[in-house]
This record gives sequence, structure tokens and C-alpha cells, in this order.
Amino acid sequence: MNKHIIGVIGGREVKKELLTVAETVGRMIAERGILLICGGLSGVMEAVSRGAKQAGGTTIGILPHDTKDKANRYIDIPIATGFGIGRNIIIVRSSDVIIAIGGEYGTLSEIAFALQLGKPVIGIETWEINGVIKAIDADDAVNKAVGFLTSAS
Amino acid sequence: MNKHIIGVIGGREVKKELLTVAETVGRMIAERGILLICGGLSGVMEAVSRGAKQAGGTTIGILPHDTKDKANRYIDIPIATGFGIGRNIIIVRSSDVIIAIGGEYGTLSEIAFALQLGKPVIGIETWEINGVIKAIDADDAVNKAVGFLTSAS
Amino acid sequence: MNKHIIGVIGGREVKKELLTVAETVGRMIAERGILLICGGLSGVMEAVSRGAKQAGGTTIGILPHDTKDKANRYIDIPIATGFGIGRNIIIVRSSDVIIAIGGEYGTLSEIAFALQLGKPVIGIETWEINGVIKAIDADDAVNKAVGFLTSAS
Amino acid sequence: MNKHIIGVIGGREVKKELLTVAETVGRMIAERGILLICGGLSGVMEAVSRGAKQAGGTTIGILPHDTKDKANRYIDIPIATGFGIGRNIIIVRSSDVIIAIGGEYGTLSEIAFALQLGKPVIGIETWEINGVIKAIDADDAVNKAVGFLTSAS
Repeated sequence: MNKHIIGVIGGREVKKELLTVAETVGRMIAERGILLICGGLSGVMEAVSRGAKQAGGTTIGILPHDTKDKANRYIDIPIATGFGIGRNIIIVRSSDVIIAIGGEYGTLSEIAFALQLGKPVIGIETWEINGVIKAIDADDAVNKAVGFLTSAS
Repeated sequence: MNKHIIGVIGGREVKKELLTVAETVGRMIAERGILLICGGLSGVMEAVSRGAKQAGGTTIGILPHDTKDKANRYIDIPIATGFGIGRNIIIVRSSDVIIAIGGEYGTLSEIAFALQLGKPVIGIETWEINGVIKAIDADDAVNKAVGFLTSAS
Repeated sequence: MNKHIIGVIGGREVKKELLTVAETVGRMIAERGILLICGGLSGVMEAVSRGAKQAGGTTIGILPHDTKDKANRYIDIPIATGFGIGRNIIIVRSSDVIIAIGGEYGTLSEIAFALQLGKPVIGIETWEINGVIKAIDADDAVNKAVGFLTSAS
Repeated sequence: MNKHIIGVIGGREVKKELLTVAETVGRMIAERGILLICGGLSGVMEAVSRGAKQAGGTTIGILPHDTKDKANRYIDIPIATGFGIGRNIIIVRSSDVIIAIGGEYGTLSEIAFALQLGKPVIGIETWEINGVIKAIDADDAVNKAVGFLTSAS
């Protein structure tokens, strides 16, 4: 199994268009045989997981809760951290590349951690932070993310 | 996919016989389609992961390190926590049942957390702590562990 | 200020005699100008903090909660981790020596972490784990703990 | 003892002028009898701690390391988390108000967490994130921070 992991981050409440983007991103990640990691909850996290499962991928949810039952239904591997939003750093550390879709302050904390650790961050309609690489759509985002995986191996 | 997760804990340095037990435990967990979670490193962690992969199972390694590259070669899902032995609580929280094989103080911390959280702990030649359910071999341990999964669902 | 820190661990529900012991331990730690760290809640944690404050000491509470307001009234420095019992490792890492008084599984996890990290653990009516140094009363426990501080500096 | 805690965050490498600002902020926090919490290392963290100690204050350092010895010399209460930059959330959770001075991605992660938790963030030459309240100097920053403490109690 390919152990490359792409982390997808984004808010719980985003506009419908971004949920569609997230679902496509998830599907494309799975089609390339890459593991998906996310926060395991609703919104972008659920949409990207649903997309990945449509393409037969494997989805990892790093949950804030101390039990597994709050994971969305598309999560294969629910990890119960019990650290609340302190779990954000684990998503980032476990990812080779991050794709950020929309998102609010929680997403911003993950973008910041990723950039601090020198990990590529691809962004779709997300925080405009120096270092974030803009993508225009799901296809562009996944291609850019995969480019970093290839160049690293 | 069955989201039941069995956590297997144990030391890095244990006698050969216990590594064989761990490998068998891993194989039996995988044969039943149950996810395996462990600390992702060497010794019992590696043996149980190897056994699970022999039977086509899925292995999750909750690593102390802040990068994924220290996971043993049988880990499918490496989670880089960066929390050192502080990651032990995540193994326990994510498991439905724990099987402890041998082990030293690290294993003892996990047994303690599991019992504090009211999770069943099956032990093979491990710490004799009030609450740990003894098993005589791999077969006995996995059967007892699975019994708890069934009764809970 | 002396930056030596003694960690005192123990359960929320212990018999009255042990609360008296804990209070005396806290007072003696403070009288020697040593910082006290504990879990910040009730039972042994509250008794030891009360004792330390009676002698004008400084008390640190490493809380499981994500806000500070659950600290007992004798805590000067409430640290809100939000990690639940995952905060136990922080108590241990921040302590030079551990004194365990009574205690259940949570205390056991801390004893295990301390021994794994090679830190001295002095115990009063607590878990009988190989490596724990027994003390017969508060005086004995604090003297033994302080002996380790001196020999290390 | 007043248990209000002000968190001061900022980078390790900032220009000299901001170190002077940080030192003044530390002194002013201490003069008002408020506890100071920070990351415990160099740069802004050291300058603010030095300032606080000049005024006889109490300084708390939430360290990324798993031992206490890396704390700067002005830290009274060194907390060894062993969580690396995962410790940032603890600084934020333990603070009533945050003052950000300069700073890079690590500081940005803390600003994001604070805003996500609804805590006031006062900024001096730091990230321009929606929600951060600008201050023009140390005096302005501490006054604004203290204003939030008063209104909350």
C-alpha cells in the first residue's frame, strides 16, 4: 500500500460549491491510491471522505473527541485523540501535503502548523497566507499536491 | 469496513516466544476483519503488525515521533503524533479492547489508561494488575477480545 | 526561585488518613521552597495543594479540562490542557520526583510514565510496582524526594 | 494570588524594537499582578519573561520539550509538555487574553486557536487576521488586554 498521505482541511460550515470541490478532491486522491487524512467530522471533512469512499479509497479521521463514535460515516480509520482542537497538529504531522478548502480559524491553525513544518499547502478559496499555493479547482489542487509527493520520493 | 479496533500493546524487547504470540494475535485479528492499532514501532508492535499483514489486515501505528518514517514496515496507516509516550493515550482511546503482551512501563501506562476508561484488557504474560483478564495464548486472547466486541454491539 | 518541582499524584477518592498525609506532604514541600505540581482537581490533589498554600508555597495544577475554572481553590497556576487524562504525561515530565499517595488507575498511569522516564517515584499506600520506593509517612516521603533533588544538582 | 493569565506569543527571531516592546509588555503585566504565560523559549518569549521578572512577576513557560532545562532563565514555572509545537494549544487554553508581538507561523497557529476559542487577541506588528485587535505599543496592548480581564470578571 502506498503510504503517502494527503491531508484535507476545511471548515464545518462552507458553501455548497466548496463541498462539491471537497468531494471531487477526495475522489481524485483515492483514484491515485493515496491515503486521505482529515479531521473526521462534518462539512469539508465529510465531503472529502465521501468522495474518497466513492472511489474506493481509505479515509483516516483524527477526531477531537475521546471516543470514535463522532466520526462521519465515511471514515474507515477513526482515531480518538481526546485532545479537542489540539488534535490539529496530528493531522498536519501525518500529512505529506495539505489541501485547504475554505475554512475558518481551525483551518488557519492547521495551515500555520503545516507552513511552520515546511509542508506544502495547496489552497482553494481559503486563507491568503504567505506560503499557501493557490489552486483554482479540485483537479488543479490534487495535481499540485501529487506533484509534491512525486518530487519528494 | 468493520470499524472495530483492537489495540495490541507490549514492549520493544520481549522474549522470542512472545513475539510469536504477537504475530499469531495479529494474524487472528486480521482474519476476523478487525482493524489493528498499535504503537507502530519494534518488538511486539512489529510482530503483531507483521501477523496482521500476513492475513491481509489493516494496521494502524500511533507513533511517538513527529514524522512517519519511523513506523515499522508492516504499518499501513502511520500516524505521526509528535507527543512521545504521550501518544499512549491515543492508542487506548481508539481501541475497543486491548490485548497486552509482555511489556514494561510503557505497556503499564496503557493498561492503566484502558482500565481507567473502563475498556477490557486481555493480558498474556504481562503486568498483573487488578482488572486485567488473563489469557493463556494467542487464540484465547483474541477469542476473549472478540467476545467483548460482540457483546458491545 | 528554586525551579525544582515535586509532583504529587493520587486519586480523587481516598480515605481520610491519606488526605491528611497529602496535606502534610504539601506543607513540607512548600516549607522547603520547592514547587508543587499536581493534577489540580479534588482528593489528594486538593489536599496537597491546601497544605502547600498553608506554608506559603506555589501550586501548579495541570488540568484535564480546556478551561481553568475547574482547578481546586488552592491552585496558583492553573494550566488548562484540554487533553483529559492525556495530561498525565505533562505532570510527570514537569516533575523531578514523584510522590504517589493512594490512587487508582490514573495514578498508576503516572507511576508507569515516571518509571519509564527514569524518574524516582516515592509511594505511600499506593500501587506496588517494581521501582516504586516505599515511604511510611509524609515526612519520610518528602525526605526521600528531596534526597533525589539534592543528589541530582 | 490573582489567577488571571495573559499569554504573550511571538517569534524567536524578531527585530530588536519588538524585543523592547515585549520586555515592556512583560513588565506591565507583572506590575498589575497578572500571571504571564508564554512558550518559554527565546526571542519574544525571553524578552517578555525578562520584563516580567524585572517587575517581580511570575512567569510560566509551556515548553515544547520533554524536559525543563530548555526554558529561558526568566521562567519561574517551566512546564515540560514534550508535545513540540503541539503545546501551542495549551498556551492559548490557559490564557484569558493573548498579546501577539511579531511572530511567524507558530504565532499564527496560536492566534488562530485563540480566535477559534473566542479569546481576545491583541496584536503588535503581527499577522493581520480578521479578529486581531491592533495595538500601537506596549502600553496600548496591555491596557487593552487588561480591559478584557476586567470586563469578564
